Parts: sequence; C-alpha cells; structure tokens
Amino acid sequence: MALVVQKYGGSSLADAERIRRVADRIARRVRKGDRVVAVVSAMGDTTDELIALARQVSTEPSARELDVLLHTGEIVSSTLMTMALHDAGVAAVSLTGAQAGIRTDAVYGRARIAGIDTARLEREIVAGRVVIVAGFQGVSEDFDVTTLGRGGSDTTAVALAAALRCERAEIYTDVAGVYTADPRVCPAARPLRDIGYEEMLELATTGARVMHARAVEVGALYGVAILVASTFDEAAPGTLIHEETTMEQANKVRGIAHQPSVAKVTVRGVPDRPGIAAHIFEPLAEAHVSVDTIVQNASEEGLTDLTFTVARDDLDAALRAVGGVQASIGARELASDASLGTVSVVGTGMASAPGYAARMFRTLFDEGINIELISTSDIRITCLVQADRVPGAVRALHAAFALDRE
Amino acid sequence: MALVVQKYGGSSLADAERIRRVADRIARRVRKGDRVVAVVSAMGDTTDELIALARQVSTEPSARELDVLLHTGEIVSSTLMTMALHDAGVAAVSLTGAQAGIRTDAVYGRARIAGIDTARLEREIVAGRVVIVAGFQGVSEDFDVTTLGRGGSDTTAVALAAALRCERAEIYTDVAGVYTADPRVCPAARPLRDIGYEEMLELATTGARVMHARAVEVGALYGVAILVASTFDEAAPGTLIHEETTMEQANKVRGIAHQPSVAKVTVRGVPDRPGIAAHIFEPLAEAHVSVDTIVQNASEEGLTDLTFTVARDDLDAALRAVGGVQASIGARELASDASLGTVSVVGTGMASAPGYAARMFRTLFDEGINIELISTSDIRITCLVQADRVPGAVRALHAAFALDRE
Repeated sequence: MALVVQKYGGSSLADAERIRRVADRIARRVRKGDRVVAVVSAMGDTTDELIALARQVSTEPSARELDVLLHTGEIVSSTLMTMALHDAGVAAVSLTGAQAGIRTDAVYGRARIAGIDTARLEREIVAGRVVIVAGFQGVSEDFDVTTLGRGGSDTTAVALAAALRCERAEIYTDVAGVYTADPRVCPAARPLRDIGYEEMLELATTGARVMHARAVEVGALYGVAILVASTFDEAAPGTLIHEETTMEQANKVRGIAHQPSVAKVTVRGVPDRPGIAAHIFEPLAEAHVSVDTIVQNASEEGLTDLTFTVARDDLDAALRAVGGVQASIGARELASDASLGTVSVVGTGMASAPGYAARMFRTLFDEGINIELISTSDIRITCLVQADRVPGAVRALHAAFALDRE
Repeated sequence: MALVVQKYGGSSLADAERIRRVADRIARRVRKGDRVVAVVSAMGDTTDELIALARQVSTEPSARELDVLLHTGEIVSSTLMTMALHDAGVAAVSLTGAQAGIRTDAVYGRARIAGIDTARLEREIVAGRVVIVAGFQGVSEDFDVTTLGRGGSDTTAVALAAALRCERAEIYTDVAGVYTADPRVCPAARPLRDIGYEEMLELATTGARVMHARAVEVGALYGVAILVASTFDEAAPGTLIHEETTMEQANKVRGIAHQPSVAKVTVRGVPDRPGIAAHIFEPLAEAHVSVDTIVQNASEEGLTDLTFTVARDDLDAALRAVGGVQASIGARELASDASLGTVSVVGTGMASAPGYAARMFRTLFDEGINIELISTSDIRITCLVQADRVPGAVRALHAAFALDRE
C-alpha cells in the first residue's frame, strides 16, 4: 500500500465529463490499494478568465488581490473532483493550500514554499480519505493568500511528495511525457523514457512547456522523481525525471527546445566604463522585464555594444526602460529586432564531448539559417535565429542529433 | 469619523461596470471621512452556476464540499471590489471569512456564527484601509470552510457591525427598502421608513425576500439597527429596521407578505393517540423537508385529521416520507394540494387591537377568495389560499388596511 502524490492539469479538468474520468482513474488506483493525494489545477481557461475579469475593474490589479482572486480557480476544481470521487464511491476530502499547510513567503504572484505542515494531510490520509489539494497556492505568515506563479501546481505536487516522504510525484497532463522536441513543430519527436533533473531544467527554461522549472528544482533538491504522463492515455509510459544513473550516455543530446517569440535589443556605442551594465539592467528590473541572454562585445576605441534578449511581449517596456537612460550612459544608438526565436540543444556531458557545438552550427548553416547570437551552458547550446526559421531549425537539429531513434 | 459596515448584494455586483459604480459610492463615503467595512455577495448568478456545476459531477454533492465550492463566489467579488477601489484611489484590502475571523459551527450549508475575532479587521481599519469582506462564509474550529445559507451575507454584515460595536449596518440591494407589499404584485406598495425587528422577522419568514431573517435576529439580539436601501438610487431614504420607539402605532398593520408556491398535505383518519405527530414529522425531518404550518383538527370517533404545509418543491419528498409511515400509523388517506399560496398581514400589537383578523377574512370573502387554512402569531395572520388568488388577495388587503397611505 503506497502513498502516491499526483497532479492533474487544467486541460485534464476542463469540464464535468473530464473531471469524472479523472475521478474514475483515481478510484481505480485506490481500489488497487494505493493511498492518493492529488493536486489539481484550475479548470481549463479559468485562470485567464479571472485575469480578464480583474482587468475589467482595474488597470493594474494589485498583486495581493490578484492572488486571492486566482486561487479560487483551483479551489473550485478541488471540490468538484472530491464530489466526483464521492459519486465513484471513494472517501475523499478537498483541502485548500492553506488547509494543506502550505506556507509561503509573501511575494504575491510568485511566492516560494517556505514549508509544509502536513498534520491535517496526514490525519485525512490515516482516516482513509483521498485528499484533493487545490494547487498553485499557499498562505503567508500573516495568513494572506499567495500563489506560486504559472504552472505552480506542479511545484505544489512535488513539494507535497517531498513533505510526505514519497519517492515519486506523478504529473498528469494532455501530452504523453517530455518529448525530444515539440511534436507540433517536429513530427519525428518522441517521448523520452527518462531524463535527468538538470537536462529537464534546461529544456524547461528554453521553451519546453510541459514542466514547471521550479517543480524540477524541488524534485532535484529533495530527490523526488517526477513522472510526466498522459491523463487519458494510460497505456503510454510517460517520462521519468530523476537523477540519471547511466554514467555515460550513448547520445549526449536529449532534446531540442525552442522559443518562437523573442526580441533582441542592442545598445550601441556605449563608453566602456564600470557600472554601464548596472545602469542598463536596473531600469529593466524595475519595469519587471525579464532578460534572457546578455552578450557584451569586445570594445573598440573605448566603445562597446551590449545586446540582450527579452520575450517579444516585453520589447516595448524594455525599449522604454533603456531609452530612459540612453542619454545618461552616453549610448550612441538603440536598435531592436522583434522577429526572432531561439533553438537550443540540451544534453548532460555535451560540454565534455567535443563536436556538438560544431555539429549544431554546421546543421544551421546547411539549412541556410543565420545565427544572430549564441549562448551556452554546461549542457546547453542556444542560438538566436529569425523566428520564421525556428521550426525548420528544430526539425533539422532533431535529425542531425539522431533524436528520432531510441 | 464613523465606522460603517455595509453590505452589497449580488445584483449590485453583477458585472464589472456595477462593481466600479459601487466602488465609487464607497470612495465618496471614505472621502467624507467615514471608515468603511463592506461585505459583498457573489456576483449575479454565480452561486446558482456553481451549484449547477456541482450537479454535473455529483448526483448529491457533499455539504462540506459544496460549501468550499460556493464560498469562492464571494471571494471573487471581494477581490474585484478591492481592485476597483484601488483604481478609485482608495486604500483597500479584501478578507475572506476566515481572514476576517468569522468562526462558525460545523453545520455545512447553514452554519451559525459562533464568534468573530476582529483582530485582523481592526488592524486593517486602523491602517486606514477599506476592508472588503467576502460574505456568507466562515470557518469551523477545524478550519473547515462553512457557509451561512442563502442570504447569509446579510448576517455577515450585521454580525460584523455587532462585533465592531457599530450602531448600524447598511444593506444595499436592488430595491428601495422594505415595502408594504411586493411591488411586483401590488403597484400601490410603498417603502416603509422604518419597521421593528419582530415585524421584519414575520415579514421575512412569510415571504418578503428583501432581508435574511437570521440577520434581523442578530440585529435584534445585539441592538444593531439595519438600514435597507437601494445601491444605485442614492436619493431614496430606505427602510430602517430597529427597536421601534413609537409605543402605539396609528396603523398596526405594517405590511402584507405572500408566498406564491405552497403545498398542503392532509393525513386523514388517523387514530388519535399519543405519538402520532412524532411518527409523521420525524420522517419529514429526516428527508430535510421544512414544514411551515401544522394544523390538527378536533378528533371525531377517535380519528383525527392532520394538515401541514410545505414549499411546493418539497411536496414529492413530503409525500414519500409520510407515505412510508401511513400504514404503521393507521391513517386512512393521504391527500395533497400543490396549487396553494399564502398571504399574511403583519403588524406589532395587532393581537391587542381587535378586529384585524375579522377585517382580513371579510376582505378575502368580498373578493370571493376561499381560505383553506389559517395560522396566527402575536403579530401576524396568515391565510392559505389558491395560488392564482394570491396576487388579488395581496392587493385587496393592501387597500383594506390603508397601506398605500403613509
């Protein structure tokens, strides 16, 4: 009799029919003898609808109030799932984040879990009830409602698994697992049987949307393996994210990630003196613009060029922020390109095996794709290219690194 | 600088536009120097929509889960109202029932307030913030979410006024106050300037829907006066429910209430022995059927007839419950009539001034309306009549007791 922590995403709970199907799935698991704690997201597009409602009453909704508003979506699905379980003959109870003992800091909109008091959870589990926990939410020390940010229910599930000393969290979603590339772009993509935490983190932060990066971090920190699998296709094995035991991988590239909508900003002809980067990036941080990659070219004649990338939606805010300091830092020109995307090759140990970067650049060259900017980590190489070339780049790299074969 | 507790109903908050109008109203009050605590209901038909959703996943939703589900409706409107106040330049914060310290018993669906811990509320008020409290909800000792039943936000507001030692609670709604009769049925009806607690209770329990009876009880118990007024027609003075100071009323009838959909069940030919009433009404209670009026006729030849009324929607359940014991109590026949309604005349001191009952019966007789059953209290006379005669009865009684004149 194992204790299992599961998580079901919003598309798996989009209507009453799907909620009943998930309840049946949980009921079968319970009848096999397992005890289940399941974390649920808000139904379908509920979160987007609530945000739209907030924008109808306020031009800039307060972060605290937005959290209180949004956390109701997950409460609604948690109670509906519990009712559906009752109808399936299973003892069950819903708990809000606060009732489940999930304590966070008070950073509204992207709170971090400070700790989980599992007393109530354990009482319900011992009483033989399936516990349905409203995901994505917690409470601060002052008992204010907080949310963990988009995809936060994944983090809720992995953190609960850690707190309840489960070896594994099961994340059920509308795809069959973590793919070698986005199957909508690359038909040859296939689900991976397993992947390491670090590789998954690099994939998640460079465009693979299947897993919330913070959930992977929590899994790595507490040694909780994460199974990503399909809610409704129960035959598909899914992908296990864990500490990989294979010392040397035959194919060191595990996946191709991409981002379709990236913008580049270049600050040209900046006098090369200390503090320039701070003067540029402080106003960006104040404007809540998240900067991806930063490259500073070697200076000539005491002048330097500084380039950074942002999400396309943030470009206007970024130009306003940097435009405000252009004169004071003495920059000659501010240029931007909003028609870019990224493609990334990810795999552990890539750095120690030569030739991967060369193969990536050669593949893009053979496709006639120009590289605008390169950035790398130990296990990742990312190239910035024109957005309309991204899908072709993904397919070509997928083939070049033989990812269509197991 | 007074502290004011207000409550806004669901129809006053049905969309973003109305929420902003209510926020403007609160903002003007704050600028006049008052401190405001406002209780809000769920927007428009939200509660009904959530109940419909619950019925899609469960044939009989658990009362605990239904409370958790429904309480999200008031949280949504509390955060939207708070955001709208921010946009109107007013410092404000939303509190859930739990955050506002509203502790209840654990009777889901119709919990009663056990006490209010005002610490957080007072901290926010002292900090100069308008506090928007999600109505209709509280938490039990075990930190489980409870709701106070339909109309419970009125009770929240009056209980908060009592706990915060306010002399008055202001209930804003889509009508101009408490009317002498339902203006949809009786065009001559007019809003009362004031009314006593007891009279209001009798009106509320016999069909006047403008106020939640429990809110009136709490007001009477703690001496909180309740102003019922229009949200958007600020010129209308509204009705003040309070301990009336006029010792003798010129017109002792204050209002005509009615219920349009009532059913009558008659158990005929029951052997007249002790315990019969218990045998009939215990199964009704178990079936959650609420019984209004009970009349037992004088017995003849050791047999008695027992008649009771229920809401029309409860008739089938009532017949099933009583049918199950008909044989064991030896009743000859079970008869019912689902086409009835009630009309009630309410006024303090009516019992001590003779002639009111006679005038009521004479008025109905003059209209050719047959009385099926009569029940009375100190300050109320209720007649059961055919449902299609109810509107005419209301109008005739309104005129007969000169309620169209101040």
